[in-house]
Parts: sequence; C-alpha cells; structure tokens
Amino acid sequence: MSLTVVGSIAFDSVKTPFGERDRMLGGAAVHFSLAASFFTEVRPVGPVGDDFGAAEFEVLEGRGVLTDDIEQVPGGQSFFWRGRYDYDLNVAHTEDTQLGVFGEFEPKLSAASQEADMLFLANIQPDLQRQVRAQCGTVRFCGLDSMNLWIETARDSLLAAIAEVDCVVLNDAEVRQLTGEPNLARAARAVMEHGPGAVVAKQGEYGAALFTADSFFALPGIPLEDVRDPTGAGDSFAGGFLGYLDSHEGAPDEATLRRAMGYGTVLASFNVEQFGTERVAALSREEIDERFSELHAMTRFEPLPAPAE
Amino acid sequence: MSLTVVGSIAFDSVKTPFGERDRMLGGAAVHFSLAASFFTEVRPVGPVGDDFGAAEFEVLEGRGVLTDDIEQVPGGQSFFWRGRYDYDLNVAHTEDTQLGVFGEFEPKLSAASQEADMLFLANIQPDLQRQVRAQCGTVRFCGLDSMNLWIETARDSLLAAIAEVDCVVLNDAEVRQLTGEPNLARAARAVMEHGPGAVVAKQGEYGAALFTADSFFALPGIPLEDVRDPTGAGDSFAGGFLGYLDSHEGAPDEATLRRAMGYGTVLASFNVEQFGTERVAALSREEIDERFSELHAMTRFEPLPAPAE
Repeated sequence: MSLTVVGSIAFDSVKTPFGERDRMLGGAAVHFSLAASFFTEVRPVGPVGDDFGAAEFEVLEGRGVLTDDIEQVPGGQSFFWRGRYDYDLNVAHTEDTQLGVFGEFEPKLSAASQEADMLFLANIQPDLQRQVRAQCGTVRFCGLDSMNLWIETARDSLLAAIAEVDCVVLNDAEVRQLTGEPNLARAARAVMEHGPGAVVAKQGEYGAALFTADSFFALPGIPLEDVRDPTGAGDSFAGGFLGYLDSHEGAPDEATLRRAMGYGTVLASFNVEQFGTERVAALSREEIDERFSELHAMTRFEPLPAPAE
Repeated sequence: MSLTVVGSIAFDSVKTPFGERDRMLGGAAVHFSLAASFFTEVRPVGPVGDDFGAAEFEVLEGRGVLTDDIEQVPGGQSFFWRGRYDYDLNVAHTEDTQLGVFGEFEPKLSAASQEADMLFLANIQPDLQRQVRAQCGTVRFCGLDSMNLWIETARDSLLAAIAEVDCVVLNDAEVRQLTGEPNLARAARAVMEHGPGAVVAKQGEYGAALFTADSFFALPGIPLEDVRDPTGAGDSFAGGFLGYLDSHEGAPDEATLRRAMGYGTVLASFNVEQFGTERVAALSREEIDERFSELHAMTRFEPLPAPAE
C-alpha cells in the first residue's frame, strides 16, 4: 500500500488567541503526510527552497514519510503563509502569502510516486492537479481538495480536475460555492454529476459529512476544551481519511469509507490541539485508536422500537 | 405521562426564497406541542387574542394537544412575528415583532398543568419562566430555552432560571454568549456549573450536541434537499426531545437522552420541509420512526480494530 500526495510544503507564521509561532513547518502536503503516516507509506510531492533544512526533513522522516519527491530548488524560498485567528477559530485571516518556489512548480513524479496505490491532490492550481493525475495513471482511489481562489479564477480547470478523481474533500462552503447551490445535499449531488462517486464536506468544528450516490454519513467534530491552532486541520483530516483507506485492499466500500471518516476526524482533532504539526508529529497509533473509540462512543445510540405512550 | 410547555402562541408572517405565508400559526409553544404530541400528553400555556380562532385551536386539538391552558384575552391581539430568510436559512431577519397579549402575560397554570410530569420553559422572559417553574413544584425533568435578548437584558434572571432546571436547550451561539466562553465544550461545562445536568446545543443544519457531566453525544442534521422554512425548527427539536423523554418512566438515563436527541433531530427535520406547522401537523408516528431509523443508519460506523499496514 502506498499513497502519493501533491501539495504545498511550507513555512507558516500563525497567531491565535492561545499563542503564536514564527515560520513553523506547515503546508497541506506536510499535514496530510504526517496524518497518513500512521496508516500507510506516504510520499509528498512538492518544491521547497534552501530555507527547508534538516530539521524539517527530520519531522517528516521521523514519522516514516518518504521525502524523495520533495524537490529542493537551489536559491529558492519555500512557500510561506502568515495568518491569524481571532476567537472564532473557524475563520483564518491571511496576512501574507509568498509562493516562492511554488510559483514555478512543474510536477515531475518519480516512478515510485507514480506507482502509488492512491493519490491525493491537495489544494494547488487545478491544472497542476491534472498534470499529477495524468502522471499517475491508474490508481485505486484519488482524492482532491481545492479552495475558493480556484473556484473563482479557474473554475473550468477545477471541474476538469474533479472529473478525474473518485472523491472530493472540500469545506462545505466550497461545495456550495463551486456549484452555486446553497443546499448542501443538492450541491454534493451536483459535484457527483461531474464524476466523483463521493463528496466529503468538511464542516470545521461541526465535523464532516460524506455523500455518495446512495448514502449519507456524518460525524460531529470531537469536542475539545483546548484548541490552539486550526491550521492544517482539513489536511490532517484528508491524511487520516486517505491513509486509512489505503491500508485496505481493493476499492473502498461504504463501511471502510465511514471508518476512514472517523480516522480523518480523529487526526483533525489532534491537529488543532497544538500549533502546526506539533501534536500530530508526536502522536502514537494507540492514542489515535483510543480517540477513535471515544468518537464511536460519542455518536452511538440505540434504535429501540418506540415505547408505548 | 404529561408535559407542560409555556411559551409563545403566535402568528408568523414568513418569507423565504421558497415561498411565503401571511399570519400562519406559529410560536414556540405551538411548534413544541405539535412535535411532543406524538409521544405524550402535552399542555401549552400562554395567552392569545381574539384573533386566535377555531382554525388555530383545531390544528392543536387535531394532534391531541390539550388547549385548556391557552388563555384567550378579550380585546387582545396574539403575539405576532414577521421575518424573512435569504439563501442562508440559518439566519432569520426579523422585520416586526408585536408582543400583543404577551406583554401583560402573568402565568396562572391550571392544576393539571402544574401536576405535569415534565415541564418545558420555552423562550420567554426569564422571570416568567421562574414563576412557571415555581408553580409546578417537583417535576421529573425540566428544560429551558432562551435567546440573545434575555442574555443581554436579563442575564441574572436567566441564570437564576437556569439554576432551577435539569437541562438547557439553546443554540450553540447562545451557549457561548451566555458564558462568554468561545469554546463550546468549556461553555457547556460553565452552564452546568449553574445547576443543569445537561446542555443541548442546537447547531442548525449541523445538528445538535448533548453535554452531560461525564459524556458527550452529537447528531448531524438530516440532509434535506428541500428546506422551505426553518421557523420553529428549534422548538420542534425541543418538543421531540422532551416528548420522547416524557414517554419513559423515571429520570432520563443516558441511552434515553440519546434517543430523545434523535427524535428531536427528526422532528426538526420535518419542521423545515414546509412552512410553519404544516408538515409536523400532518405527520404520522410511522413517518417519524422511519426517519429515526434513517438517522440511525446515517450515523453508524463499525469500531473495527486497526488493520495491519
């Protein structure tokens, strides 16, 4: 089993009401890879600059992430994002974005990355997502994330990319924006009409919902009394989700997709407890499974027959 | 088993992107009573004016709701609310509120209402909630709803009312506002420190969460492709929730509370499918139980041991 992810590998400067960090390791492919590393062999693909050093590689390799397809561009600067969150941690306020080496990124996947069983196209320009998708050819399962920027500036490319994947993993607001349909159930169906058999609508602290052609499944967010930094939570969700899927043979069935939603929820919940990658990089599989069991317990109820009045 | 509810009995004029209605039957006690009527004997308490006629009584009595404690004030006008919803159905825009006979309301409960097994204090001025609570004396379970207006203008009274109930049923934003705590899990705990053993945080289309001293439970909203009017959904939730609780002997245990959350979710989902009371008034218990089973199916996942990598 192996999983390739293409996306940003970055430095983030983040301030929340609970603290701040300057130039910490971040980026969608990083958060995704660390989360997926608990389940399968994962290869992030993306460019970094000279500023990306041994310490950053060590965080990834410490979790067994295979870093051969991280391309270090001489003289370049890594992708950089600076943002802050106020007390409403659902809303990120971007203060600075510097594309750096990502502005010239032309994906060239190694043979090992191309031959992965599963592929995740994290949030990058949709034409780049399609290039990566084409290089990989047949995969067992391919997921895709995106953002409002591409919905607004490259909608046709994005729809073409979506047509080539099995599952989109988007925020619920993005599912609505992409389709122009305010009703989420209708919006998810409209996305599936473009090709994907599944739509995951991430809902921040409210959890996540899974739409397929003939079923619906939803999980609440895990209630946490200490949330310090939501940066990367959606990517950790996707990493837990696809990582778990990849650890199973064959095309994912409904039961496997649902458990994968559970692991996505669990990884996202750990992500937000500390800044950046701090919590997930230090996790154990035992902690993950324990919280998975807690999630199961907090969503369970008995379908008793109706009592007499 | 019997359940008393005090709250508004009203006419609502509502416009949504999907239609409009002028002076339809509404009010918290009405929506609550109709939802609860599928589970138990329910008595709404509140004043109406001369404009409240046989047609309105018939809707309630058609569902077996006991209307003896609806006080018709000669020469008075019933509570009236006019509002609209745009495409974001989570946000009501109030255009007019006329208290009418509610401005002079002094609750005087009949013996039958006072002797109910359970009590729900729907959203009215907190001192009135306390008067009703005092008239009822010992009850098996008492719930309370409120709103931002009372949090802002009568916070001390509201906290005193909360101290006298078993469960508050509030929107999650109200739980945060009441406690000044942006984190919902901490906010719910802060509410429980005032006395209630349970906090239900309603989350609109995202569902609802139940906090107790030692557990957490959450349900998603049921995905609906046709949502026409959300007015009264929270009250229908509370009616399904307390109605189901009242249909069981003794103090509610965790399993009963969880199933009650399910019935609350189901009644709220029917409420929004048509305007005002139209859908719930025409429901059958079979439809309710069928959707309850669907809700169970769409939240179920298997807690498998982790697979080998």
